[in-house]
Formats: sequence, C-alpha cells, structure tokens
Amino acid sequence: MIVAETPQRATPHGLAHQAVHFEDGLLLDCGVRLGRLSVAYRTCGRLNAERSNAVLVCHALTGDQYVAEPHPLTGKPGWWEAVVGPGRPVDTNRFFVISANVLGGCMGSSGPASQKDGQADGGSAVLWGTDFPPVTIRDMVRAQKRLIEHLGIERLFAVLGGSMGGMQVLEWAALYPESVFAAVPVATAAYHTAQNIAFHEVGRQAIFADPDWAGGRYWEAGKVPARGLAVARMTAHITYLSEQALTRKFGRRLRSGASLTLFDDLFEVESYLRHQGSTFVARFDANSYLSITRAMDFFDLAAEHGGDLARAFAGAKTRFCVISFSSDWLFPTAQSRAIARALNQAAANVSFVEVESDKGHDAFLLDEPEFHRTLAGFLSGSGRLIGLS
Amino acid sequence: MIVAETPQRATPHGLAHQAVHFEDGLLLDCGVRLGRLSVAYRTCGRLNAERSNAVLVCHALTGDQYVAEPHPLTGKPGWWEAVVGPGRPVDTNRFFVISANVLGGCMGSSGPASQKDGQADGGSAVLWGTDFPPVTIRDMVRAQKRLIEHLGIERLFAVLGGSMGGMQVLEWAALYPESVFAAVPVATAAYHTAQNIAFHEVGRQAIFADPDWAGGRYWEAGKVPARGLAVARMTAHITYLSEQALTRKFGRRLRSGASLTLFDDLFEVESYLRHQGSTFVARFDANSYLSITRAMDFFDLAAEHGGDLARAFAGAKTRFCVISFSSDWLFPTAQSRAIARALNQAAANVSFVEVESDKGHDAFLLDEPEFHRTLAGFLSGSGRLIGLS
Repeated sequence: MIVAETPQRATPHGLAHQAVHFEDGLLLDCGVRLGRLSVAYRTCGRLNAERSNAVLVCHALTGDQYVAEPHPLTGKPGWWEAVVGPGRPVDTNRFFVISANVLGGCMGSSGPASQKDGQADGGSAVLWGTDFPPVTIRDMVRAQKRLIEHLGIERLFAVLGGSMGGMQVLEWAALYPESVFAAVPVATAAYHTAQNIAFHEVGRQAIFADPDWAGGRYWEAGKVPARGLAVARMTAHITYLSEQALTRKFGRRLRSGASLTLFDDLFEVESYLRHQGSTFVARFDANSYLSITRAMDFFDLAAEHGGDLARAFAGAKTRFCVISFSSDWLFPTAQSRAIARALNQAAANVSFVEVESDKGHDAFLLDEPEFHRTLAGFLSGSGRLIGLS
Repeated sequence: MIVAETPQRATPHGLAHQAVHFEDGLLLDCGVRLGRLSVAYRTCGRLNAERSNAVLVCHALTGDQYVAEPHPLTGKPGWWEAVVGPGRPVDTNRFFVISANVLGGCMGSSGPASQKDGQADGGSAVLWGTDFPPVTIRDMVRAQKRLIEHLGIERLFAVLGGSMGGMQVLEWAALYPESVFAAVPVATAAYHTAQNIAFHEVGRQAIFADPDWAGGRYWEAGKVPARGLAVARMTAHITYLSEQALTRKFGRRLRSGASLTLFDDLFEVESYLRHQGSTFVARFDANSYLSITRAMDFFDLAAEHGGDLARAFAGAKTRFCVISFSSDWLFPTAQSRAIARALNQAAANVSFVEVESDKGHDAFLLDEPEFHRTLAGFLSGSGRLIGLS
C-alpha cells in the first residue's frame, strides 16, 4: 500500500484540502474497485499518548470535514461549532477530533468531483463526474477506517454524527465493533423510508431536469446546474425544519412592499428558501448530491444482516447513546426507538433519549441545551470508564 | 350584462368544454378587471322545480369540473366518482350537482391558458399566459356565484370540496351566507401555513427553472415546461400521501432487476413518482399551476375579517360539517379544529369529524367508508330539514 499525504489538493472549486491518498484503492459494495482512494480530513485537539481519546465525527448529506473551523468556501463557522470545540460537549481540550469528507463528497475525498483513476496530477484533470461508481454508507465507513488506521488509531473512543452521519455511526458499530468504544447516532435511522427516498428522488429529478447538468458533464462546458440543484436543496430544506419552526420563523409574513403577483417572492419564507437554494449551489457539487442521496436511499442496515437489525449488533461491546428530536418528521423518534430496541435485543449497552424540541430534524445542528447536556454527560461517563480525564 | 353559453370552446389542448361567458367581466381582488369572464362547468342530476337541490362541488388544485364522468383528456374516471353519482353520498338521483373549473384553471375557465381580453374568437388566439392577473380564492368563488345565478339558483343546498375545494367552501359561507344552506369543508384550512407555502414555492421554482417555460410564453414556441412541471407535481404528490401510505404501497421494494446505479429508478416509489410527474404534464398547464398555487398561498380567511376567523362566519345560518383525516399532515386535523372552534364562537351550527385513515391528505379522494357515511348522513339530515326527499 502506498500512502501519500497532501496538505493541499486542488478541487473544481480551486480549493486546497488536507487529504490522504491510498494508491491501492478501495473495493466498493457495487463490485468496482476504486484505483485510488482519497480521504480529505481535518483534526482538532491532540491525540494522547495512549491514542485512546480519538473521536470521529461523521457528517450529514451536505456537511463536510470543516466541523469546528470556518468553511473555506463560505467563510461561515464550522457546521458543528455548537457541539465541537474547547469546553463544548465534544471538548477538544480532552478529545482528538477527526472528521473526514465522505466518499462521494465534493470537498477533497474521492467522488464525482475528484480526478478519475489513471489521471496524472497536475495535467488537465479528467473528473469522475457521473462515471464515479455508486457508493454505499458502508463504503464511506470503510474509507474512514483506512484514514483512522493511517492515523495510527486502533480503537476510536467515540463515533458520532447526525442524520446521514448517524447512519455511518451505526455502520461503524456493525462493521468494526472492536474499533468503537462508544457510539452516538443522532436524529437518524437504520434505513431510509419510502418517504425519505421520495423526497430525494424529487431533488435528483430537479437536477436531471436542468439542461446545464448536461448529462452530468457540466464542468466541461464551464457550467453548473444551479437551478436544479437549488430546487433540490429547497425541497430538502423544508424536510429539515418542523412546521412549528417554519411558523415561528416566518408564519405568513409578507415581504415588505409585497403585493399579489405571480412571480416575485411574496412571503418571507419564499425569500428564505430561494436564498437557501442559491447559497448551497455555491458550495456543493450536483453530482455529489446525486451520489450521496443514492447512498442514503440504499442504506438498510438490517438488510445487510439477513433482515434482522439486532444481528447487526450481535455481541457488540460498544456503548450506545441513541438520540432523537421530538419534532423531527424526517427521521422521527420511532426510527431511533427501533434502533434502541434492536440494540437491547442484542444485549448491547444502550441509552435512548428523545430531546423535546420544536426545531425539526435540523435540531441536531442548532443550539439545543438538552441535547448538548446529554451528549456531554454520555461522553464524560464513557471516558471515565477508560480513564480519560 | 351579456351572457353567452357555449357548448364547446377550444383550449390549448384542442379540447371543447361547456362554458358560460360573462362579457361584463369580473373585478378581481388585485384591482384588475377581467374584461371577459369564462366559467367552464358541468352538471349532473336534475334541478327540482323548487330549485332547492343544487350542490356545488369545488375542486382542488389540480382537479377540474369533471367530477363524476370520464376526464376528456385522460379518459380516466372523474376525480370524485367515489363520492358523487347515483346512490353515492352525493346522490345524483336526488341532487343537482354543479362543478366549475376554477378561475385560473386550464380546463375552459378564464385563466393563463385562455384567450386574452380583446381577442376575437376564431382567429389566431393570443393567450393570457403570465399576463393573467393574480387571482384569489375569493375571486374563484365570485366567478362561481355568477355561474350559479346564471343557472337560476338563489340558494345552494350545499357547497362541498376538499383541500383547495374546502377553502372555496369556507369562502362561499363567508361571502354569500344567504346562498349556502349547508357547507362541507374537507381536509382543508382557513389559511395556508408557512410549510404549505414553502412546498408550493419549490414547485414554482422548478417550473421557473425549466428553460422550456420560456418566461411563461412556452406555447408560442410550441413547447411545454414538462420537466419543471413534473418536478412540481412530484413534490406536491409526496405531501398528499402519508408516510404510512407510502410504506404500505412501496416500502423499500426495489424494481425488478434493479442494481445500485446513479441514474435509473431503483426503488418502486421512484418509478411511481416519475409516472405521476409525467402523466400530470399531459393534462395540466404550467402557468395555471403557478396561478392557482399563488391563490392558495394567499388564502387567509381570518385576515379578510380583521384577523378574527369567527367574524368571517358572524350570524351564519349555514349548517357546517367540518371533516379532517387523522394522517393528513398537509392540512392536519388541528387546522379543521380551528375552523370548528371559530364556527362555534360565531354560534354557527357545526359538526366536526376526524376520520381515522392512514391515507394522508389524498384520503378525501379515495375509498374511505367512514368519510362517505359521514357525508351521506350529513346531507340526508340537512335535506330533511328543507323537505328534500
């Protein structure tokens, strides 16, 4: 195995990302072998001498490795600064926090926006685009495992993440139980429901419908399927919020000076959605969106274990803390309860907390004191068990 | 006032619709006067000698006047044949059923797809397109009132409808209380919520994003914004179904022979949605979709009455039967309960029924025996009060 570590690597955005490259590649669930595997990642805090304080943070569909530092494209704060940092629930004074861009992503890891196998660095890059093979949540976790090994870590103190990040947490515990001491799947599910799939399909169709998508080879024409990707984001964004949150934020407030017209945005909620759509386009790759939504839709952990979710966790020594939010209708509490039930059937160590919140699925990203206290308490308690101070 | 009744009238689809034309037009809420008002309609059953057995059925966003007869474009059964017909809850052996295409619609009434004011019949038609002035639910009801007067009916025995049809029912009772003996708003609300507006906005953006929409003048180029309209329909369709209904229908069933790919529809629910999108395009006009969703979003009956919904029904002698469905998350029961509460505050005669169903918002269109029994019982009981046999 040849490993090359690069402090910077050009992407279509012209951005540099810290990354590690595995020249022996990765065999994917679909049967295809990626010839070269790149994993872009960031770390925060210090690995202790025993290498026992590493926490892997897994990101959601449109997240990335910039968890607790400004986003290099938008300049905005990291997506989980409320949770990860000095003195935060995931305290970077105590833990060594690792986060990797998922396989299929567009922030430096192998994905549709990365260089196709067999291309020399430096030359005019041929990108994977839609030739990038379909990946699964399990493939994402396998790639992360390579990174963790590269960093010299045998066992992670904890793996945590929300939404698609939570799917990766579950897959980590199922695939590498010896490598995960504690696991925190948040606002997630062990499979994607028909409704989840349906919303994703609308987003994909919106991208396919944009002529600037150009059959997936938009960058060759110097274009971006901005309108299709924005519509996809708008649809998804509605599902991330609760009805209460939308009402609290906007209700039926009209934009100032708005009158009844066919085209202009009339209500504040419309302006907000249009803004969400257009800012997303500036930081995300449409083909990555296709690739990652597919991976989520395909996720069904029980199906990987003969249809029995409990078997996925058979003999697990990992400590679990399953967390859901009461107003999350995309990944409702019932889904988390089903995970907790399977863990109990597998005689695993599990606590399950439903946090009261009116913020919907997005609650895991927001200021939710009860969630943060639960997480901090679980990590502290688990840390004491292995002598982490 | 000049009224012309035409048995047939050409539309962009080349279809003929029964319609009445009011040459004195209609003053709209937006302040614009339509120079000519066309109302396409159908009737079923016989008006009795006392003209006391007329029932107006109001259709939803994508419905039309073909309630209980085959649709002229698709050949499919009428959208409410389960409810309207001989021996059905709205028994056409007893009632004279009237249904009109809404203002803004595309099945023969004045709307974006109809001829612009000042155009001579027969010549090469200039259509309204996006020049059609924005209309409200109240405008739709005013247009229906003109039709009812034209038919020589002073008081409707009943007005009923689901979803946007229910909004029209509420508006009828508020605007013309003397003309409505009984009112049945089904699966509806007295205003559109921020979440409702948000979903509609996604659909509109999908249409705007389609280059074939051509700034709203697509028919001039002989095109149809098929991809955008299909995405709009797909999004909306998900909101019409409950999660349970989707799971029961499709779950995570893969299409036969499906393997993990980026593009093909993999899950049955995806094929279903794609089919829903493409069949809708064949029967609906994109500009009408824009116009009617705007009317729904703008609907806020309390706001029309100083912010107090009860005032909309002050002194009402109309008998109300408010019906909701337990799994409807688009127009949840809480919205119907708020209507019933306001009616009670206004000392109106109201019964309120939440029908247990796992079919979601679409339940009002489907085979729901409890709903049908409730409706039949209410209409029979109300009919006895005025001597209808």
